[in-house]
Amino acid sequence: MSKEIILEKIEQAVKILNEKEIDMWMTYVRETGSMKDPMMDTIVGTNATWQSAFIITKSGNTYAIVGSLELANMKAVDTYKNIKGYLKSIKEPLLEVLNECKPNKIAVNYSLNSSLGDGLTHGLYLELLDHLKDTKFANALISSEEIVSSLRGRKSSVELNLMKEAVKETLKIFDEVTKFMKPGMTEKQVAAFVQDITAKRGFEPAWEKEYCPSVFTGPDTAGAHSGPTDKVIEPGHVINMDFGIKYNGYCSDLQRTWYVLHPNEEKAPAEVQKGFDIIVESITRAANNLKPGKKGFEIDEIARNYIQIQGYSEYPHGLGHQVGKLCHDGGCLLGPKWERYGNVPFIEVEEGNVFTLEPRLTIPNYGIATVEEEVIVTKEGCEFISERQKEIYLIK
Amino acid sequence: MSKEIILEKIEQAVKILNEKEIDMWMTYVRETGSMKDPMMDTIVGTNATWQSAFIITKSGNTYAIVGSLELANMKAVDTYKNIKGYLKSIKEPLLEVLNECKPNKIAVNYSLNSSLGDGLTHGLYLELLDHLKDTKFANALISSEEIVSSLRGRKSSVELNLMKEAVKETLKIFDEVTKFMKPGMTEKQVAAFVQDITAKRGFEPAWEKEYCPSVFTGPDTAGAHSGPTDKVIEPGHVINMDFGIKYNGYCSDLQRTWYVLHPNEEKAPAEVQKGFDIIVESITRAANNLKPGKKGFEIDEIARNYIQIQGYSEYPHGLGHQVGKLCHDGGCLLGPKWERYGNVPFIEVEEGNVFTLEPRLTIPNYGIATVEEEVIVTKEGCEFISERQKEIYLIK
Repeated sequence: MSKEIILEKIEQAVKILNEKEIDMWMTYVRETGSMKDPMMDTIVGTNATWQSAFIITKSGNTYAIVGSLELANMKAVDTYKNIKGYLKSIKEPLLEVLNECKPNKIAVNYSLNSSLGDGLTHGLYLELLDHLKDTKFANALISSEEIVSSLRGRKSSVELNLMKEAVKETLKIFDEVTKFMKPGMTEKQVAAFVQDITAKRGFEPAWEKEYCPSVFTGPDTAGAHSGPTDKVIEPGHVINMDFGIKYNGYCSDLQRTWYVLHPNEEKAPAEVQKGFDIIVESITRAANNLKPGKKGFEIDEIARNYIQIQGYSEYPHGLGHQVGKLCHDGGCLLGPKWERYGNVPFIEVEEGNVFTLEPRLTIPNYGIATVEEEVIVTKEGCEFISERQKEIYLIK
Repeated sequence: MSKEIILEKIEQAVKILNEKEIDMWMTYVRETGSMKDPMMDTIVGTNATWQSAFIITKSGNTYAIVGSLELANMKAVDTYKNIKGYLKSIKEPLLEVLNECKPNKIAVNYSLNSSLGDGLTHGLYLELLDHLKDTKFANALISSEEIVSSLRGRKSSVELNLMKEAVKETLKIFDEVTKFMKPGMTEKQVAAFVQDITAKRGFEPAWEKEYCPSVFTGPDTAGAHSGPTDKVIEPGHVINMDFGIKYNGYCSDLQRTWYVLHPNEEKAPAEVQKGFDIIVESITRAANNLKPGKKGFEIDEIARNYIQIQGYSEYPHGLGHQVGKLCHDGGCLLGPKWERYGNVPFIEVEEGNVFTLEPRLTIPNYGIATVEEEVIVTKEGCEFISERQKEIYLIK
């Protein structure tokens, strides 16, 4: 990640701390080579081995406290104004910084709702409490989830440009797949073709390569988040593919639907066409209502209810998630009020958020119709950053 | 990671649960694509998006509870005997399993001392407590750090073979560097040469590629955990390089030291030779004392004291760490009793542990001498798995 984007995000963080009246945000980590707080790539830009604290204050100051062996590296990375090293324990330099800044509230990265805001491990949390006991900061710790949600969600113009490029490159690959796919091929062959192009162009898959892309052909497929199988593409199948790339650190996440024609067919059967059209229309209706201030579940309900009213089962997931440095990014989710989603469907949509819209329905005996687009939330609505699929793609 | 090794590690875990009289070990995660509990690769072998629990019991039973969209994937991975899916909340299937197993103690992955045993985030810990409140399991949670420490530390024969191969391939690369390095090259050029060979042979760097390898030439270098610079190799420099590869999922971690001859020199100056020999001897002394039952700090002290008695400053880190799937692996550390190391220098060495031995000293006006070897702890002592560097390498 470039230093430029990190400094831009730190500046944004200072603004958010002022909006939310939080004195200090501290990212407290160790051994990030083995497990990395997702905030490290956003606001630090390097790794840390020993216990380290990356502190941003409401007044715009920044402090990095790192092990002495990593001082030189942190200075070279040059994203923090004040850099302190220690040899035997982080406690003393940490308390020095706190005593200098005197924060009433210190946001740290734990969250029941957002995995992105939950980078602090329980063991490190206990350690931090131990360092702060007998000081006036012992009761100052609060969750940083609102900060993280806004910071990851509000895309800067540099970030948005990278995301648009990622989408464009992904759609090119979808076009090539449309030309490539033929009856008789297996899901795995299609996936291998896509992975090959992805690697040749120097892109990484946006999520675990075992199921990036996911390819599902015909009825009774394994469902989302599963890898491609040896199932063979046959005439009469509805095929869908879920795929994204990581482009200069930013992800895309898109889905498209195809129908495999029988030798004597020229278009998809009426049931297939109907199912597909309902997916497209549900996306249009959701997008027409998406704007700052709406809550996530309100947008999910529009698509979900529309699909159910047409006589199909509700999709077993949210309508859409934010995209960014990770495929699942940001706070607010366009999802239903299910317990496993915690509070994220209740968070308000903000300007600058990039969401997927990805409803799904099963067309009995044919397969699953899903289309996934990406939109950017503007001041008063939203705009598609992916060129929409409005017609089902036909394979001969 | 192959299914074979994962099943081997699960079997080992059951044995450890019996040794330590712990009824159940639960790895509780979500969104492991963004931040992954280090145990996932050891005992699960795939990712999980929604809240998921991977449970191993003392009686040898295993349960995976995952989101419904990931059921098919989990069945395909096939590392758990009982696989349960859920749609809206994990609470119900989780309590079902607990009620079936009736554990008195449930080990979960938090630890003040070991980052490898600290994969549970604080937010997920709070969520878990919330699921368990009003049940008899509310007070059953304990730290899994002893389990994790033993499980990662005790290398199976399959693991050990992979690690020996990793070391052998790494030493080959060191040999090639010895032939390649010449006065006038920069640290960055040497590092680029190493990274190029590594990539061509299909290996990954064992740690962040920004400083894998680290290359330090001459006096006043940046010190460990820093990337190579534009500093030029000159006659009279002591050079050291810290480098490792990941080979089929297992890491190596080794260091070697060179001296750059002046045109009229045929061997290293006496001070350089002396510093180098002290490093080699301190490794021999530490290895002669390393065996099961020793505590980490006891071994560190042997090398540390020997170096200090010879009139050099103590090295600013531990003598050695365990190596495995990660470059810094396992529990017990051969380190001093400094606060930042927590309890890990107090843990006992076990048979099957693979440690580095990597003392360091500064030779004034020349540079830093470090040699890092790897040893496997046997029933009654230890054996080197790296062919030792006993003579300083000379560059013309």
